[in-house]
Amino acid sequence: MNQKQLLRRMADAAALSAPLADFNTADAVVYLNHLESAQAADTLAALPLPRAVKLLEAPELQRAGELVAALPPARAAALLGLMADDRATDIVHELDEDERARLIPLLDPQARQSIQLLLGFPANTAGALMTTEFVSVPADWTVARTLQHIREVERTRETVYAIYVLDPHDQQLRQVVTMRRLITGAPDDSILAVAQINPPVTVGPLLDQEEVAQLIRRHDLLAIPVVDAQQRMLGIVTVDDILDALIDESTEDVHKFGGVEALDRPYMQIGFFDMIKKRAGWLSVLFLGEMLTASAMQHYEDELARAVVLTLFIPLIMSSGGNSGSQATSLLIRSLALHELRLRDWWKVALRELPTGVVLGGILGLLAIVRITVWQLAGLHDYGAHWKLLAVTIGAALVGIVTFGSLSGSMLPFVLKRLGFDPASASAPFVATLVDVTGLVIYFSIAAMILGGTLL
Amino acid sequence: MNQKQLLRRMADAAALSAPLADFNTADAVVYLNHLESAQAADTLAALPLPRAVKLLEAPELQRAGELVAALPPARAAALLGLMADDRATDIVHELDEDERARLIPLLDPQARQSIQLLLGFPANTAGALMTTEFVSVPADWTVARTLQHIREVERTRETVYAIYVLDPHDQQLRQVVTMRRLITGAPDDSILAVAQINPPVTVGPLLDQEEVAQLIRRHDLLAIPVVDAQQRMLGIVTVDDILDALIDESTEDVHKFGGVEALDRPYMQIGFFDMIKKRAGWLSVLFLGEMLTASAMQHYEDELARAVVLTLFIPLIMSSGGNSGSQATSLLIRSLALHELRLRDWWKVALRELPTGVVLGGILGLLAIVRITVWQLAGLHDYGAHWKLLAVTIGAALVGIVTFGSLSGSMLPFVLKRLGFDPASASAPFVATLVDVTGLVIYFSIAAMILGGTLL
Repeated sequence: MNQKQLLRRMADAAALSAPLADFNTADAVVYLNHLESAQAADTLAALPLPRAVKLLEAPELQRAGELVAALPPARAAALLGLMADDRATDIVHELDEDERARLIPLLDPQARQSIQLLLGFPANTAGALMTTEFVSVPADWTVARTLQHIREVERTRETVYAIYVLDPHDQQLRQVVTMRRLITGAPDDSILAVAQINPPVTVGPLLDQEEVAQLIRRHDLLAIPVVDAQQRMLGIVTVDDILDALIDESTEDVHKFGGVEALDRPYMQIGFFDMIKKRAGWLSVLFLGEMLTASAMQHYEDELARAVVLTLFIPLIMSSGGNSGSQATSLLIRSLALHELRLRDWWKVALRELPTGVVLGGILGLLAIVRITVWQLAGLHDYGAHWKLLAVTIGAALVGIVTFGSLSGSMLPFVLKRLGFDPASASAPFVATLVDVTGLVIYFSIAAMILGGTLL
Repeated sequence: MNQKQLLRRMADAAALSAPLADFNTADAVVYLNHLESAQAADTLAALPLPRAVKLLEAPELQRAGELVAALPPARAAALLGLMADDRATDIVHELDEDERARLIPLLDPQARQSIQLLLGFPANTAGALMTTEFVSVPADWTVARTLQHIREVERTRETVYAIYVLDPHDQQLRQVVTMRRLITGAPDDSILAVAQINPPVTVGPLLDQEEVAQLIRRHDLLAIPVVDAQQRMLGIVTVDDILDALIDESTEDVHKFGGVEALDRPYMQIGFFDMIKKRAGWLSVLFLGEMLTASAMQHYEDELARAVVLTLFIPLIMSSGGNSGSQATSLLIRSLALHELRLRDWWKVALRELPTGVVLGGILGLLAIVRITVWQLAGLHDYGAHWKLLAVTIGAALVGIVTFGSLSGSMLPFVLKRLGFDPASASAPFVATLVDVTGLVIYFSIAAMILGGTLL
């Protein structure tokens, strides 16, 4: 661009970044999210470095990778180097190969090393969530020396409220000291005098983030240390990273349960064709599965031709099976996610769902029988000479289908878990499809039994 | 009970509590959860007070209310008095009227006062989540005096990492000081010298917990102060309370989306009839709604009798509408919960879902046309002389129904929110039911248009 354009662009960026002076970080992030990408990047470039770092570290900033890629490379590298390394790694994750290759060599060596370490861990694990910016001290230090050390490094550490005490010889993690206990210690006390008595709770770098969250929650921690096989510290996962991870995971779970591939960006920011891609896949798979219903119906075409009245209740009966299945699935997905139930408990659940399904099916069956009887007697519709048998057929079919729906809906998360999938992949549409085909077979079999010789 | 029984019971409790000595809190909780209620209460009674308090404070302890009610009242009151007041309040919440009336007068006055304050706030609000055990100091104190104060009160405060600085005259909240900044201050500095520059982020006691979580996350806080209309502090909500609340809320959301009333206890601990009650209500409502499909089918009974082949595709077509609807609903529920979209954005969403639905419906329609053509030409099934028109009918109906499903599935959360309900009450079965009836009408209308004069 020529000099005039450059000057204009700089003036624009100055004008754009002016309102940010009065905003706190959260509000500034909202402001940036509303700008066009190019404008937002220019604004970020015009801000003082520490301010820009704060904004880039905010988990609610959208398009962070895109913005960093649009900055002059030297500035981008400076910002990434100053950021918390876990968040910097998230941003590097969003860059494409070329952008990474251009930026990583420009990083200062320490930032480069920790970002490359963190990039190596799979998504949604303790390793991917952790930061290497924690406070550790050798076990032979005093309280006063530790406090002095913390004062010096405070600005570059994600948290200073958990202090990790390492063996001076082999660097193994020995104890954890909380800041609240540290300040109660006498200055000349050994750091071990204020340490917790229980051995520290640690996790391996490959543990799933949901399990990390459970541990942090169970042990009421602000951060949990991530250690290698030799008990040497790799990093820490802090409670605010877990909070972000849980919110993302619960979005993902609801999306999956609705039968969509999880979106990684807000609804309005997904391109039209991306959105189609996220939805068409599952929708088509379910559609192909559901085609079996057409095959099942073809099989019963003669019965249908003889007794059209049977078709009237097909949608009602099938949806009841799907609804009871999706109820059971939603209950079991959460029980498994929260570790309330283990894989080997499947039979206990089956033994509960069987009578539950029978009772629920009984209630719906009764409603259906009352409906048919009232409509028939009130003259609202004529279900034919055999309406009583028809009512019994519908009632019995509902008991069978709701029982089958509850049972298979509750077993599906177990089956998925057993096969190594996330139980939360059991979506409501998936269960409904599973139940629909069998539901038709149950319906026509019961109809053949009860109505054989009369209607059929 | 006679003396012999009493002695036996004491010996039993001693034997039961013995293994707890070696367990950390989290493991001891798992152990207690596996005991019978009476045994668990006896074990709790046999433990030293501080240990029992730790166990009762663990959010994963089940039946806490039941256990406290089963303890000798004096011991129960002592335990509640020593516990964090927010958790003690949760437990008092679980007691029935009689048990409360018996225990509350036995509490020490300070605990009684704060528990009664907290009991007054509705569930799932900042007031109900908060603790009154925070650290506050007057604005005219020094760093050294504040640190000394914290050392003295540390054991009775839920967190000491955020220190709230109050106006010495009117007790209004003026600033927040973090512990990490406090320890960097010179001992004789005023506390205000290490305070944050931005005015503190506060919430009112009636704010919903999900919004509190968003604020804690956006501003990266360990605790958020809850203030009254005069900016006087009522308490604080800490990040670990929010973590618990979010996990509970995400369970609730999945349950609701599956069409069940949220369970308040783990799956295996709900009584059989309670479980029926939680599920039968929604299932029956959906069933009554779905009965409209039978009415719609009755309306088209003549068409069905003339062209039985049309019935073959009813389950396929209806389920596709329901599936696309549940996809759209799951996307919008989360977007609204995360405040990515506001109520007034509904038309932007509608404008996106319309073309998305048409394309998705087009994909499924094409699959259906291919299926019918292949089956017909390969001789797998005979759809009659007008099979080409039938294929076009099915394809067109799918476009119409998937579009309608996507549109109504995406609008439903907005409608619920507008009416003052939680958008997350839009369950997959609810959407499916909504779409089913209209789906049938769309199907038969398109069939009448295309097949009128030939099949119909």
